[in-house]
Amino acid sequence: MTKKILILNGPNLNLLGQRQVEIYGGESLADIEDACVALGHSLALEVELQQSNHEGVLIDWVHAARGSTHGIVINPGGYSHSSVALLDALNAYEAPVVEVHISNIHKRESFRHHSYISQRANAVIAGCGTQGYELAMRHIAHLLAEQ
Amino acid sequence: MTKKILILNGPNLNLLGQRQVEIYGGESLADIEDACVALGHSLALEVELQQSNHEGVLIDWVHAARGSTHGIVINPGGYSHSSVALLDALNAYEAPVVEVHISNIHKRESFRHHSYISQRANAVIAGCGTQGYELAMRHIAHLLAEQ
Amino acid sequence: MTKKILILNGPNLNLLGQRQVEIYGGESLADIEDACVALGHSLALEVELQQSNHEGVLIDWVHAARGSTHGIVINPGGYSHSSVALLDALNAYEAPVVEVHISNIHKRESFRHHSYISQRANAVIAGCGTQGYELAMRHIAHLLAEQ
Amino acid sequence: MTKKILILNGPNLNLLGQRQVEIYGGESLADIEDACVALGHSLALEVELQQSNHEGVLIDWVHAARGSTHGIVINPGGYSHSSVALLDALNAYEAPVVEVHISNIHKRESFRHHSYISQRANAVIAGCGTQGYELAMRHIAHLLAEQ
Amino acid sequence: MTKKILILNGPNLNLLGQRQVEIYGGESLADIEDACVALGHSLALEVELQQSNHEGVLIDWVHAARGSTHGIVINPGGYSHSSVALLDALNAYEAPVVEVHISNIHKRESFRHHSYISQRANAVIAGCGTQGYELAMRHIAHLLAEQ
Amino acid sequence: MTKKILILNGPNLNLLGQRQVEIYGGESLADIEDACVALGHSLALEVELQQSNHEGVLIDWVHAARGSTHGIVINPGGYSHSSVALLDALNAYEAPVVEVHISNIHKRESFRHHSYISQRANAVIAGCGTQGYELAMRHIAHLLAEQ
Amino acid sequence: MTKKILILNGPNLNLLGQRQVEIYGGESLADIEDACVALGHSLALEVELQQSNHEGVLIDWVHAARGSTHGIVINPGGYSHSSVALLDALNAYEAPVVEVHISNIHKRESFRHHSYISQRANAVIAGCGTQGYELAMRHIAHLLAEQ
Amino acid sequence: MTKKILILNGPNLNLLGQRQVEIYGGESLADIEDACVALGHSLALEVELQQSNHEGVLIDWVHAARGSTHGIVINPGGYSHSSVALLDALNAYEAPVVEVHISNIHKRESFRHHSYISQRANAVIAGCGTQGYELAMRHIAHLLAEQ
Amino acid sequence: MTKKILILNGPNLNLLGQRQVEIYGGESLADIEDACVALGHSLALEVELQQSNHEGVLIDWVHAARGSTHGIVINPGGYSHSSVALLDALNAYEAPVVEVHISNIHKRESFRHHSYISQRANAVIAGCGTQGYELAMRHIAHLLAEQ
Amino acid sequence: MTKKILILNGPNLNLLGQRQVEIYGGESLADIEDACVALGHSLALEVELQQSNHEGVLIDWVHAARGSTHGIVINPGGYSHSSVALLDALNAYEAPVVEVHISNIHKRESFRHHSYISQRANAVIAGCGTQGYELAMRHIAHLLAEQ
Amino acid sequence: MTKKILILNGPNLNLLGQRQVEIYGGESLADIEDACVALGHSLALEVELQQSNHEGVLIDWVHAARGSTHGIVINPGGYSHSSVALLDALNAYEAPVVEVHISNIHKRESFRHHSYISQRANAVIAGCGTQGYELAMRHIAHLLAEQ
Amino acid sequence: MTKKILILNGPNLNLLGQRQVEIYGGESLADIEDACVALGHSLALEVELQQSNHEGVLIDWVHAARGSTHGIVINPGGYSHSSVALLDALNAYEAPVVEVHISNIHKRESFRHHSYISQRANAVIAGCGTQGYELAMRHIAHLLAEQ
Repeated sequence: MTKKILILNGPNLNLLGQRQVEIYGGESLADIEDACVALGHSLALEVELQQSNHEGVLIDWVHAARGSTHGIVINPGGYSHSSVALLDALNAYEAPVVEVHISNIHKRESFRHHSYISQRANAVIAGCGTQGYELAMRHIAHLLAEQ
Repeated sequence: MTKKILILNGPNLNLLGQRQVEIYGGESLADIEDACVALGHSLALEVELQQSNHEGVLIDWVHAARGSTHGIVINPGGYSHSSVALLDALNAYEAPVVEVHISNIHKRESFRHHSYISQRANAVIAGCGTQGYELAMRHIAHLLAEQ
Repeated sequence: MTKKILILNGPNLNLLGQRQVEIYGGESLADIEDACVALGHSLALEVELQQSNHEGVLIDWVHAARGSTHGIVINPGGYSHSSVALLDALNAYEAPVVEVHISNIHKRESFRHHSYISQRANAVIAGCGTQGYELAMRHIAHLLAEQ
Repeated sequence: MTKKILILNGPNLNLLGQRQVEIYGGESLADIEDACVALGHSLALEVELQQSNHEGVLIDWVHAARGSTHGIVINPGGYSHSSVALLDALNAYEAPVVEVHISNIHKRESFRHHSYISQRANAVIAGCGTQGYELAMRHIAHLLAEQ
Repeated sequence: MTKKILILNGPNLNLLGQRQVEIYGGESLADIEDACVALGHSLALEVELQQSNHEGVLIDWVHAARGSTHGIVINPGGYSHSSVALLDALNAYEAPVVEVHISNIHKRESFRHHSYISQRANAVIAGCGTQGYELAMRHIAHLLAEQ
Repeated sequence: MTKKILILNGPNLNLLGQRQVEIYGGESLADIEDACVALGHSLALEVELQQSNHEGVLIDWVHAARGSTHGIVINPGGYSHSSVALLDALNAYEAPVVEVHISNIHKRESFRHHSYISQRANAVIAGCGTQGYELAMRHIAHLLAEQ
Repeated sequence: MTKKILILNGPNLNLLGQRQVEIYGGESLADIEDACVALGHSLALEVELQQSNHEGVLIDWVHAARGSTHGIVINPGGYSHSSVALLDALNAYEAPVVEVHISNIHKRESFRHHSYISQRANAVIAGCGTQGYELAMRHIAHLLAEQ
Repeated sequence: MTKKILILNGPNLNLLGQRQVEIYGGESLADIEDACVALGHSLALEVELQQSNHEGVLIDWVHAARGSTHGIVINPGGYSHSSVALLDALNAYEAPVVEVHISNIHKRESFRHHSYISQRANAVIAGCGTQGYELAMRHIAHLLAEQ
Repeated sequence: MTKKILILNGPNLNLLGQRQVEIYGGESLADIEDACVALGHSLALEVELQQSNHEGVLIDWVHAARGSTHGIVINPGGYSHSSVALLDALNAYEAPVVEVHISNIHKRESFRHHSYISQRANAVIAGCGTQGYELAMRHIAHLLAEQ
Repeated sequence: MTKKILILNGPNLNLLGQRQVEIYGGESLADIEDACVALGHSLALEVELQQSNHEGVLIDWVHAARGSTHGIVINPGGYSHSSVALLDALNAYEAPVVEVHISNIHKRESFRHHSYISQRANAVIAGCGTQGYELAMRHIAHLLAEQ
Repeated sequence: MTKKILILNGPNLNLLGQRQVEIYGGESLADIEDACVALGHSLALEVELQQSNHEGVLIDWVHAARGSTHGIVINPGGYSHSSVALLDALNAYEAPVVEVHISNIHKRESFRHHSYISQRANAVIAGCGTQGYELAMRHIAHLLAEQ
Repeated sequence: MTKKILILNGPNLNLLGQRQVEIYGGESLADIEDACVALGHSLALEVELQQSNHEGVLIDWVHAARGSTHGIVINPGGYSHSSVALLDALNAYEAPVVEVHISNIHKRESFRHHSYISQRANAVIAGCGTQGYELAMRHIAHLLAEQ
């Protein structure tokens, strides 16, 4: 039976492919969505991708995902480093969470080295570019298969 | 004459009673509202309870409460630890403010030990569970009676 | 059946009402005792209030309270910030503990922001003035009622 | 040819002239807008002024300003000190950015001394009161003239 | 044409499957090798897996891999947190490096949060269990395909 | 009536236009003086510009300016970050002080982020290049006009 | 008219002249008392000298000195560095307080560099040996003469 | 000839065997005294065991032990982490001092990792349970035998 | 039945008795081995003593000791302060571990105050000189007797 | 025989009596010189008082005082907190040095709490106002008498 | 008479001339050896050069050099920043030690600014490129000539 | 053709040979000058040696050396640790700079471990005594020969 995962994207990720291409690469969020949906077919996972620049909206979506999804892939963007509120929302989520960062945040400014979200995430994938989303999906599929 | 107080709730408190019951207890926000309205009757205080996951909405509500309310009971949730903006909004509020945390934040992760809101609050009540709201109301009633 | 609680006061609280009235208010410790005893009647709680400037005496009293009381309301005064020994004494106490500070310690010098006692206390009430003792009693009554 | 600049105001700046007048002065945001539009006439700059208490809305506006404006004057208010997300939005903006603070933030609480936005801003003007907006406009005009 | 990657394992990873199974899982290093070789077939990657408890041996192997391999997957184990020497060895390696940690190191003791190796690695994958090796291989395959 | 302001320049500013042009621009101190004198004419401000590499000389000049000038524009150069003595001299000066940095010091090495002088300055202008001096003059003119 | 001052000595000062003579000198507390009483005659000051190893006793004595003495010379010994409670007691004392350390605490272990008592003391004299008590008395006499 | 050693116990150790048995074990202080006296017979050491919750009393006992004992075994309990005064008392003691902690303090809360007493102690034994007292006695016997 | 313990010595301990005798004493490692073997006879413990300057060799020996020994006495020397890898090896060892330091590391340079090994060790004995090994053996014997 | 002492004053002390009278009092440096010369007569000390705002001049004077004076009373002003060079000059001076601060620097901004000069000074007197100079002279007289 | 010095090279220095030439230059270790041997002839010093990537091997070599060499030139590479064990080995070496870094480590990442080895080294030479070895030899020759 | 180098000496170095001989050795600055001039002859370098206790004078000399010298050897003395202004002067100097410290500053007080000047210097030589100047000259000669 198909299970559903939510791919949640935080602030500024709507600009993917348009800004700072040397850091974030040339693919757009729509490209990522296409790739994830395709991979979802082979993994028997239904995929929903969302993006918001609003911390509160991201929290609302995490709440909505409770009970209706089987995993979250989240790229929290800049909120990784400041949002206890988003961490708390994920703490109230019961299924697997994988945190993705397109760039290797450990090689950038020191304030990007710490992520509140990592304290909840089952796994963290950083620096794999946009492929990171697919790897995260594979890990959730693996976890769901183990259950 | 009845005076009005605003009970403001920050992110994730809409999930009260549903998430991490071992930390936050089994009462819902509606239960708290009922208890506070009831206590308000005995203290001659009109009670309005609001909740939002959006930092900006919380700020807007604090602004709206200026001049129209006689006190704020606020549980800022995760924004306690990151929101200078919410602190600034409360700095522009002229009546008593009591900060409430359901759990004893000083026994949890170290990033929960510091609250920006405490720099403005008249008083801080942490770890009294959902009863904390009622104790906060009693303190505002006490302050209003002293005026 | 009446249960007993101990209200324990640390250093300098014998001067309440006499010193720094702008911070600590005009009520004396005897006034607080009267108010607490009165409230105890309505909550079916017997109240014993003690004060000492000696860390060791406070520890001795905590030990004596083991098995003979049903809760402690403690205002540790300046020992809040330095006494691991008092924390350890409370760690050996089995019933509820509520920590009270008359002023909002989070708005004062930074060395007052951390309390060792908070790592043991069930709840912390700061900045409610001398009413804080009464609110603490209400919380202990609430906890005892829940048992 | 007239060029366009966006004057972006963060949380609580809608209260300008109403709150903490000893810190922020008596002018309202509308007064500032009038002064900036007037100065814009003499500098051949079209001016648009916006304010929001919502971090996400501010980010949305920065995105919208990409390609359609020639500079941003931003007073990030309380988000200066916490918002990596807003910094990232400005990192994706290609034209000059001048950060303005009405008060001299270096003379206030230590948590106000650091601004994430300053890591992107071309220039920072703090403590010039509401005149800071005009000085910032003059600097953008100067930069545009140099191109 | 088949390309070759080295999967390098640091101290204590020879005990995989035998120690602290609740953290590291029940698979042995041989199991991982089998899975990686199998995945290598489908990705056209030749796989060599090595393990040593000796920092110097790991450095020697990184040196030997220069010019003879097309990528390194490294789980540096405890040397992640202390070895500038291993970082320097990898700094002298010219092809992609992906760092893998079986557990999510950001949820463990604070001294495990910082890895010197992350300053060189193209990507970091933590908390995916032993599947992390396979995901790392997929990322190197992806990078090699892009060249 | 014309009022007088002192434009004080600290160490290495005599080299302006000759050193590190990518940071400090191509204008010399004489160019700045010309521009400031010219602007002074339109603002009814007499301008005196001084420069010294000697901390003690700068302090002497601040003392001399007491009672004989109506404001100081100061670019303290490297002494910004180390000189409590210069701060103390300015603390004994009664009229407005505006601190100017040609570059945005917040984007440079971390030891440049803190300025002792900012604890006394009415305002701080950083990163506006040599135009910063003119903007500072405008602010002093504005403050003098308000008196 | 003769005024009275209290010379209060903290822990281990009863051993003066017997322990660590290379740090504290060879005079006993009785020698100091004699010298202070003698100096008191010439300054028209009655002198009472007390010593205790008990923090609580020192606090009790400070309380007792309220209203009955015109100044305190205090050598808080090891409690300088840990006792908020003693600081609070002195905060409730209304007349001059001079803190004395026999050795220059700034040349010793780093934990001796900070004294809580210095936040209340009118003056601090360190490293003058046992003469420090006399100098402190002279300063209190000077302050009393100025009133 | 029999030599005498003092076994000094700090705050809360009177509760040994009654509180937190999972940390401190089930033996009482009387049990320890019996074991130490017995061991003392075989080592030709007279043993005196004392306990107090009062920092000042402990200091008084250290003073009294000067000249009359040949070594101190001290378990300073919570005062380990805060008492410079107790350290200073031991600094004035001339014979061997061995510090004992029943639990391994390095595995507990971080504020328990630092002991002021360790800066004076000849040796530190932590985590050996109540056997630690006996091992400490053996070490003092060894040191005395070497003299 | 005789049980076996491993006495493991880290870097530079092969020089015992030859280097820095004022810190480490005049006994050689062979002397220690003789004393430990002798004590082992009386405690029914077989003793094996090893020393290496190689971190990896120490880890290998800890691995080899799994299942074949009943306790480890370890003096990790300089690796105490840097080796997470050795800590991890001991985390995979199931029997008692006692950490020994010949000198009192808390009285030496600050980088010697923290030992990673202490986070795993059952007990830590520091400053007892070479007798520390014997005391550690006694504690392991005690723990084995309790099982 | 008369001995000579140098009273050295650092930056901004030429303004004594003119600036920040609430902190530094109303006496001028000339008043202090008169008082010190007068006291010198009674103590058989010749007094020379100097002041400079120049760190280098102060160092030159310390050098000149080597061999020609019997003590230095120094108020290093703002250079207390930044000048290793002045500390080094005093390290090369062989006679007693007493450091004086007019205000109690420990009650002011935190950057004033640390003085490099205190690491060399025999004694430190802070907060005694301008009387501090006289007390310092008395202490040097005392030290010289002891020799 | 010819004296012997050991030139010891730590991890990754076998790659000199091959890796990161912009930092470390184009000379190989063999080139350095040739230059040092040649210089040794003119200074009457026999030279032995060794390199290892193994911390333990370096320690073994330092031990072997005790008594058989008259000085060590050491480039500890990455072990500079992490190896207390290597420091301890050098602490047991009795002749001169000069530490060499090819690059100026103070201009690189902050974790390279601190070297444990510098706490033992007689001298430290950084940033002189491969000439640093020769300068170090000259200094040892100078020290040996002085003996 | 002879090239010219400036040997610049900071505060207190005029006392070389007279003060703290155990740290700085017995040679005077004139001795060093003689040795450097002599070495200059063999290296075809003209040498000018200057010393000042005045930070501003040192900066002036660095400015004067721009364009007229081919390298600077600088011993910044105490200004190493505090002078951003001197660093900035050297940042404006285009030829090689070698920093020299007579003592090994890394073995002294912690405030001597950091030098601002090292962020600009090509190389740093510490602890070679007065020979350090000669080694520095050799390195500049080497760099000039390479150009």
